[in-house]
Amino acid sequence: MKIPNIFEDETKAVSFAAGVTIFSSGDQGEAMFVIQSGQVELSVKGKVVETVGEDGFFGEMALIEDGPRTATAVAKSDCVLVPINRQRFEFMVHEVPQFAVEVMRVLSRRLRRLDDGVV
Amino acid sequence: MKIPNIFEDETKAVSFAAGVTIFSSGDQGEAMFVIQSGQVELSVKGKVVETVGEDGFFGEMALIEDGPRTATAVAKSDCVLVPINRQRFEFMVHEVPQFAVEVMRVLSRRLRRLDDGVV
Repeated sequence: MKIPNIFEDETKAVSFAAGVTIFSSGDQGEAMFVIQSGQVELSVKGKVVETVGEDGFFGEMALIEDGPRTATAVAKSDCVLVPINRQRFEFMVHEVPQFAVEVMRVLSRRLRRLDDGVV
Repeated sequence: MKIPNIFEDETKAVSFAAGVTIFSSGDQGEAMFVIQSGQVELSVKGKVVETVGEDGFFGEMALIEDGPRTATAVAKSDCVLVPINRQRFEFMVHEVPQFAVEVMRVLSRRLRRLDDGVV
């Protein structure tokens, strides 16, 4: 996903080394992350539910619902992430409809995958 | 969810009697539905995953991803539904940010519930 340059000053990329925990299930979530490079593994109760790669994003659920992290995110490789805080998230949802569409698409895809696993 | 009156002429509510199937898993989806009254049960592979009541909505995933229905929707009681077709959905996502936020919230809540079920 391309992040519009509307908050250029706030777009400070952060680096994580392979194996580092970015956030843990139960944490308060203050930001979502767009992956500039590398891969991040999301797990719920110790089970990997998704591997997110370049241009993908994760951590948006805590912003949408203002609740704790459901998943634990670990850098699968060295990676560079662009955090999007709550204020920026809300701005983008309101001003960049394509961003909202992309977030909905990712959530919907995850639900489909989980539904496929229902027995 | 309140539907803005921007498409008044197209807001034709439709009624379903208790027990009637509104759509089935695998169907092509052309609309989502907002529940004006009554309750609708969503099931995946024969297992009830959600009961949606008044002001709730369902069927949005087929519009977001342009894919087939994942769930089967059955009227749990007599109900009145307002269909939102693709064109209207896209218009609302672009013009009514609160609508996009509400759709994201519902998807996120469902994911949390499913994640809680992961063992």
